[in-house]
Amino acid sequence: MAHDTNVTWHEHQVSPEVRARLHGHKGCVIWFTGLSGSGKSTVANTLDHLLSHRGVHSTVLDGDNVRHGLNAGPGMLRETHGEAFAERFGLGFTAIDREENIRRIGAVAHLFSQAGLVALTAFISPYRQDRDLVRATMRAGEFIEVYVDTPLAVCEERDPKGLYKKARAGEIKHFTGIDDPYEAPVAPELVLYAAEKDPDALAHEVIDYLIAEGIIPAAPLR
Amino acid sequence: MAHDTNVTWHEHQVSPEVRARLHGHKGCVIWFTGLSGSGKSTVANTLDHLLSHRGVHSTVLDGDNVRHGLNAGPGMLRETHGEAFAERFGLGFTAIDREENIRRIGAVAHLFSQAGLVALTAFISPYRQDRDLVRATMRAGEFIEVYVDTPLAVCEERDPKGLYKKARAGEIKHFTGIDDPYEAPVAPELVLYAAEKDPDALAHEVIDYLIAEGIIPAAPLR
Repeated sequence: MAHDTNVTWHEHQVSPEVRARLHGHKGCVIWFTGLSGSGKSTVANTLDHLLSHRGVHSTVLDGDNVRHGLNAGPGMLRETHGEAFAERFGLGFTAIDREENIRRIGAVAHLFSQAGLVALTAFISPYRQDRDLVRATMRAGEFIEVYVDTPLAVCEERDPKGLYKKARAGEIKHFTGIDDPYEAPVAPELVLYAAEKDPDALAHEVIDYLIAEGIIPAAPLR
Repeated sequence: MAHDTNVTWHEHQVSPEVRARLHGHKGCVIWFTGLSGSGKSTVANTLDHLLSHRGVHSTVLDGDNVRHGLNAGPGMLRETHGEAFAERFGLGFTAIDREENIRRIGAVAHLFSQAGLVALTAFISPYRQDRDLVRATMRAGEFIEVYVDTPLAVCEERDPKGLYKKARAGEIKHFTGIDDPYEAPVAPELVLYAAEKDPDALAHEVIDYLIAEGIIPAAPLR
């Protein structure tokens, strides 16, 4: 069909400025990247709590809520949408599927940011190019890349979901850090050393950054 | 890989109750459905403005912002992600692609609702089963189906994007209402008669419903 190129932006939308005034802060995307077990989800959720307490509207996108819905695998889609649909649209863990996984998360995080929220994403997102493509969809300053820099040995020691053990045993293939690469950000907005500090201290480092950049006010909103 | 079934919910998330207290209202999905040109987008954007003025946090998902990102067609993806990727993941307008289009929009609207926002979606969403599958992912009362009931003759007369003309000329195939069916909701939460009233009056009908259901307070929040 010819629709693909017929898309035009609706002219009557509420402007970002009006949304920012309504929320009392700007929208943005805080993109946590790092190895499995590095602490991304824990820091993101801790930050979400701290932001809530300050009256800042935020949300967390992580593997847990995204893999249940938006980026469901074939197994989940088969039950609700049938075999052919699951085959066509279910996301697995191959290179191209991971790329699409990150692309969709970036698109949704962008929608949240445009809605005026502070969107926190917590995904390994191991490939530099995938992260850079997400960054390229947003305006300057909107995409805040936070590298959760935890040594592999520490992540493997923690192994909260037992995935490293399975990867070492060969039960999981293409596991980031074991038999698949992790490409650290070249110029992230922030680096968090999650082997040396607790989640609360790390979350406060992000808050300090948001205040310094004028995204959230220095004084709590409530 | 074995990840697909290893997904578990993170235990430290901010609860819906805390988010509702923070926002001053509950989250929900207002799902506008109806023919092309029925007025879905206009009413949704008018409602978005009215909600903003009341201090209610909302967002609009419609073809314009979703087709530019999350549900991009092959044409857009080819430029950024290459041919094979575009072929595999680009969404077109076949039956199965439309089903996936609606499934993703439902998943994202659900994430917005869980984040405490009033998410307004404006898509033809012609198939009853697709809408019912979205409804089934949410808690009772969270999915509010709004049937924008505008006669085909009126929509075709308006024809804001000239699509009916193209469909009648055979330039667009599978166009809802012309050579593809529209399945009206059997038991929508609301029906709006958009041929008889203006967008402002219709948006106020939705606001009255939200107040009556206890989703937003009767008094403006600011």
